[in-house]
Amino acid sequence: MLARFLFPIVLFTYATVSVAQIHPITYNTKEDFDYIRKVIPTNQLLNQSFQDIKKDVDSWIGKDIDVPVPKDLAGGYTHEKHKENYMLLFNSSMLYQLTGDVKYAVLAKSIFLKYAVLNPTLKNHPKGSGKFPGRLFFQSLNDAVWLVYSGLAFDNIHNYLTINERKTIADGAFKPEVDFFSGELKDWFSLIHNHAVWACAGVGIVGIATDNEDYIQMALKGPQKDGKSGFIANLNGLLSPDGFYTEGPYYNRYAILPFYLFGNAINHYQPSLKIFSQKDTVLQKSLVNMLQQTNYDGGFYSYNDALKDKTYLSNEIVEAIDIAWTVYGDTPDLLPITKQQNRVTLTRGGAAIANELLSNKKIGNSYPYHSVELTDGAKGDEGGVTILRNGKKDSLTSLIFKYTGHGLSHGHYDKLNINLYDGVNEILTDYGAVRFINIEQKSGGRYLPETKTYAAQTIAHNTIVADGKSHFDGNEELSQQNHSNKAFSSIGDGNVQVVSATENNAYPDIQLHRTIYMLSVPNPSNNSKPLIVDIFRTKSANQHQYDLPFQYLGALIQTSFPYKPFTTTQTSLGTKNGYEHLWKEAEGKSTNSFSQFTFLNHSTYYSISSLTDDSTRFFMTRNGAKDPNFNLRHDPAYIIRKKGSNQTFVNVIETHGNYNAITEISTNTYSSVSKIELLQNDDEYSVATITFANKTILIFQSNKDFSPSSEHEISINNVKYNFKGAYRVLVDGKEL
Amino acid sequence: MLARFLFPIVLFTYATVSVAQIHPITYNTKEDFDYIRKVIPTNQLLNQSFQDIKKDVDSWIGKDIDVPVPKDLAGGYTHEKHKENYMLLFNSSMLYQLTGDVKYAVLAKSIFLKYAVLNPTLKNHPKGSGKFPGRLFFQSLNDAVWLVYSGLAFDNIHNYLTINERKTIADGAFKPEVDFFSGELKDWFSLIHNHAVWACAGVGIVGIATDNEDYIQMALKGPQKDGKSGFIANLNGLLSPDGFYTEGPYYNRYAILPFYLFGNAINHYQPSLKIFSQKDTVLQKSLVNMLQQTNYDGGFYSYNDALKDKTYLSNEIVEAIDIAWTVYGDTPDLLPITKQQNRVTLTRGGAAIANELLSNKKIGNSYPYHSVELTDGAKGDEGGVTILRNGKKDSLTSLIFKYTGHGLSHGHYDKLNINLYDGVNEILTDYGAVRFINIEQKSGGRYLPETKTYAAQTIAHNTIVADGKSHFDGNEELSQQNHSNKAFSSIGDGNVQVVSATENNAYPDIQLHRTIYMLSVPNPSNNSKPLIVDIFRTKSANQHQYDLPFQYLGALIQTSFPYKPFTTTQTSLGTKNGYEHLWKEAEGKSTNSFSQFTFLNHSTYYSISSLTDDSTRFFMTRNGAKDPNFNLRHDPAYIIRKKGSNQTFVNVIETHGNYNAITEISTNTYSSVSKIELLQNDDEYSVATITFANKTILIFQSNKDFSPSSEHEISINNVKYNFKGAYRVLVDGKEL
Repeated sequence: MLARFLFPIVLFTYATVSVAQIHPITYNTKEDFDYIRKVIPTNQLLNQSFQDIKKDVDSWIGKDIDVPVPKDLAGGYTHEKHKENYMLLFNSSMLYQLTGDVKYAVLAKSIFLKYAVLNPTLKNHPKGSGKFPGRLFFQSLNDAVWLVYSGLAFDNIHNYLTINERKTIADGAFKPEVDFFSGELKDWFSLIHNHAVWACAGVGIVGIATDNEDYIQMALKGPQKDGKSGFIANLNGLLSPDGFYTEGPYYNRYAILPFYLFGNAINHYQPSLKIFSQKDTVLQKSLVNMLQQTNYDGGFYSYNDALKDKTYLSNEIVEAIDIAWTVYGDTPDLLPITKQQNRVTLTRGGAAIANELLSNKKIGNSYPYHSVELTDGAKGDEGGVTILRNGKKDSLTSLIFKYTGHGLSHGHYDKLNINLYDGVNEILTDYGAVRFINIEQKSGGRYLPETKTYAAQTIAHNTIVADGKSHFDGNEELSQQNHSNKAFSSIGDGNVQVVSATENNAYPDIQLHRTIYMLSVPNPSNNSKPLIVDIFRTKSANQHQYDLPFQYLGALIQTSFPYKPFTTTQTSLGTKNGYEHLWKEAEGKSTNSFSQFTFLNHSTYYSISSLTDDSTRFFMTRNGAKDPNFNLRHDPAYIIRKKGSNQTFVNVIETHGNYNAITEISTNTYSSVSKIELLQNDDEYSVATITFANKTILIFQSNKDFSPSSEHEISINNVKYNFKGAYRVLVDGKEL
Repeated sequence: MLARFLFPIVLFTYATVSVAQIHPITYNTKEDFDYIRKVIPTNQLLNQSFQDIKKDVDSWIGKDIDVPVPKDLAGGYTHEKHKENYMLLFNSSMLYQLTGDVKYAVLAKSIFLKYAVLNPTLKNHPKGSGKFPGRLFFQSLNDAVWLVYSGLAFDNIHNYLTINERKTIADGAFKPEVDFFSGELKDWFSLIHNHAVWACAGVGIVGIATDNEDYIQMALKGPQKDGKSGFIANLNGLLSPDGFYTEGPYYNRYAILPFYLFGNAINHYQPSLKIFSQKDTVLQKSLVNMLQQTNYDGGFYSYNDALKDKTYLSNEIVEAIDIAWTVYGDTPDLLPITKQQNRVTLTRGGAAIANELLSNKKIGNSYPYHSVELTDGAKGDEGGVTILRNGKKDSLTSLIFKYTGHGLSHGHYDKLNINLYDGVNEILTDYGAVRFINIEQKSGGRYLPETKTYAAQTIAHNTIVADGKSHFDGNEELSQQNHSNKAFSSIGDGNVQVVSATENNAYPDIQLHRTIYMLSVPNPSNNSKPLIVDIFRTKSANQHQYDLPFQYLGALIQTSFPYKPFTTTQTSLGTKNGYEHLWKEAEGKSTNSFSQFTFLNHSTYYSISSLTDDSTRFFMTRNGAKDPNFNLRHDPAYIIRKKGSNQTFVNVIETHGNYNAITEISTNTYSSVSKIELLQNDDEYSVATITFANKTILIFQSNKDFSPSSEHEISINNVKYNFKGAYRVLVDGKEL
């Protein structure tokens, strides 16, 4: 009955190219399905994935599935229902292939036919906002995801459908969306942006599923089919040669799914394209290097817009790993992750991994994390990110040093930012995004205003803010045109790891140069954790106020300096650029050239020891000001403020001691850093000395010539020191 | 050499009664040791306990053990060293018994001889404060603990020591401490208080170990040996007939150790005393009922002065369970806990449990929690605490309703307080104590001033504060003389659980009556979690301001009422009684008779729906004001303020929905409670109706006659209702 009154519309709008094709092919080929069908009864984990889906789909069999007129934001009924529906379409189509039971195809078809009626009637979503509203959903991105899963579903039931049914669905359910993308949303569809990857994947998968070469070409080469946009342009333009995705790992996770899903489909459809080999196997690098950007607990590093509770257990990573297993071959490094995921997809790779998990008795508990350096930019020449790591398993220390480009619309003003993790715990934190995913009462899960006004601002990070203004004065366009540059680095297993980068555009008249040393200096009190030395230089012809915040998590234990706490009335630290979101809890002043701040996070102590001068002020702050809707967490920060033209911050971050609540024993609650001096500090060289556990650490650093082959001679207190390359570190006169 | 110059002192001060005795006997008998020695090689867990101790002690063999002159607070060197030393004494003496290797006895002896030199020279500790300073430690309590472990150690090496050595140690190391306790500290030693239990245990164990009947009698009957104080008086006076310890479970944990350690010793020494059977096996009840006062994650409920990170993995509980296993026989209920503890003591019970863990394959993962009601007071007539529970395992809901006495020096002003836990998560919280155990920088781990000024005050809890003053106006002596009274209750497995209590003394002219219903009303949106209805009545001849705080943990999602947020300047809510520690973040006003407040804690939503009137104001607050040393956590609260003479708060607390960060799906983010009315509310009856998921819940409650046999007839809207007992609950006209 539904199909009957659709025909006139369908006939009227149908005008695409059709090619004959073997189905299924998009998600699994027929041979893949044969293999999976064989493994299911013999493998408990794969069978569980199968049963989970079956249980869900079976509960809908015989029911009338609602396909409502779109109305709500994320979290609301119609939004959630359409999400449910595309998964139900996909899952029932998978069961049709795996069981051969026609009832699953009937269910999927009945839903498709409802969309074939609904979609041609849709205008822009009533709650749609911004430049790119959707139709089924408030934002076009979700419509693209709908296309991806509906396309995969259509392909799976393709051979069950009659020619007329295929046409009804292709023209009614898919064409209005594809026309919308390539018409009104053409600018969006043509972006080099993760949303466009979803759009390409949706249009491309629908193209393969419905035998529509026109769609496939639009997907691969953009709506104009000129290759300036589309899937391949995104693969080349969106990912750096290391597979680094400029929006950061949280969005890399999301972006990788359409890359892999459509990559997989097009690889079946047109193997000659060798999509997974393109740009020197960039899709493999993107997966592996994204996983290196997770913490020991699997959480993605939260720089740029990110939600902290997202981990590699996410569906996107399960899908990508399972596809990678087939196209790139077995990768044992991934098994600790697949083991924790404890589920696989119903794919050839998923089945193979399920078998591997069953037979391989040597799978470790942790992904093999190591120090890593990733370039940003399509050509790898737009800065990057370095992760310095030390220690193994739950005593893994990870320091993220970010000197990338801006990160598109999800970037933050955080040039030369650092974050620090100790085991599973976040010590120096990046706020991430201000957002409550999928909660209707919180703007339907959209980014809340405080994402822009606070989380993206420089003060919300652990890097220098000059004159209370964010980098690039918070101008996204300007920031997007620039990136920091690596000066030098050395990472790996040695006792000295270092990374140094410069930023000359964040402020018109200031040059920023930050160098992070991760040093393994033996000391009984620090649980063998590395010492971090942070030399942050500013250079300017003019006087400035420099704020260096430490967004720490934990309880303040002690400061070496006196401060004035604001105990009955508290005001915000400033009025703009994120400062308006910080309550000023206390304010202090340095009393000598060495200042120390100790806090407790979980069972470990951390001390920040600082070189300070007469101009130095300290602020203890907490997020939560100007937050009328209670959107912010209330995390503390310790801000060091210095004034001057050329200034240098030398900070030593020490992990020490242990607090055991069960035994009530605290050990080494005091820092072992007792002195910091700059013996020389000019355009040529910085020489810093640190007294740590009665040892003298001496750091020589070249500030101009970063070449690894240059030879330097420098005289300190009439003693001559030589070094080759950009730095040298001595402990008690000996090479570390 | 050490011993030589000790003799003159020793001879001069020695003057106690000696009796012949078989040793060892205090911690283990010879037969116990024989059994443990036999099990060690066959049981990995017991062997691990043995190896752990051995590894630690072996690292000290041949070294000169420092016995420093006392100087530091907790966390400081001398404090920690003396703590280490008594454990080293104990552990090396255990190894002497278990291995027969004389080197362990030599090590213990050498330490004892140093204490025999040091102790006679000690005056009160230089950092000692309060009425009861210690000598080796800043507080006498720690000196008592030192006596306990040193006494056990002496007993273990008793037979190795020569008569002269015994005398040297007894007179040099022990006598000064015992004399100090029974002399200067006699008032303390004579208390009915957990510190006195430690003192009795220390003196008693030393008495048995050194064959000193005088000490033993002082321990059992108090320093005057009149039975008015001492161990038995404490056993009778400190624990209620249910074994409830008025200071709360956190201190029950600490207090149970000396009860069990000396109980065990005296039970070996004088079995005819039947110490473990006294007061109807109160020591068994105390252990089991304390464990019922832990949360699903093993954490002790944090009412009164408590630290939240303390769990039943603590050493005290390992010791107590292992002793209980021997004296009370096998108790399979305890095995889920011993399994999590994953260690046992080197006792007969410890060895037996280790064997049980090995052979018993049916041990569950969770302690069998159930609803429980415990009386307070030596005779069980001073109020109590009721824990209403619903659900199993990680969907266990626990509500603690407290109507006890004050709780001695660790009590809070929290009459009729409630706390709520959902699975492992704390939802409505009790701050506990403000204290950083064992951190020297935080006053050496002592209670910080904010414990009294904030954590103990009524506003820090979830109960009514009248006129901004704490219960009993914060007068401990007055509070100590009073207790609340249970009105009626019904707990167990039914769909209706209820507990009702009255408090007539907290304020001179106000009667408080609170009734908590935990209702299992089927509703798909609340994950089968119970609905909590809280009817809190006040009665007074005078006008008052009533504040009812909800100290929730989580992120505010939505309120049904408008409020004014304080976004650029924030002031404290008040100036005293704990209000000075709350920042006022926002203030609102009820716009109709129904108000709602929804928050997210971990992955679950909670809504507090309230009957409100024109006088009702709302405050959103956060701890942290007047906190110059950053001692407080920054937790939020939602405070409902009403004015009037007789007022009734009706609040419904609903657990609903789910937030899944991995799948990004939120369900049932809105409360299903849509209406609350009081159909009748007077001295005789309260009748409340609640609309919940389109069902009508009708609650009848007698406010005067709480007898379970009384018959009531009440007419509502011309319909007559009958009920027997103090309450009746109907859902859509049917008995729940």
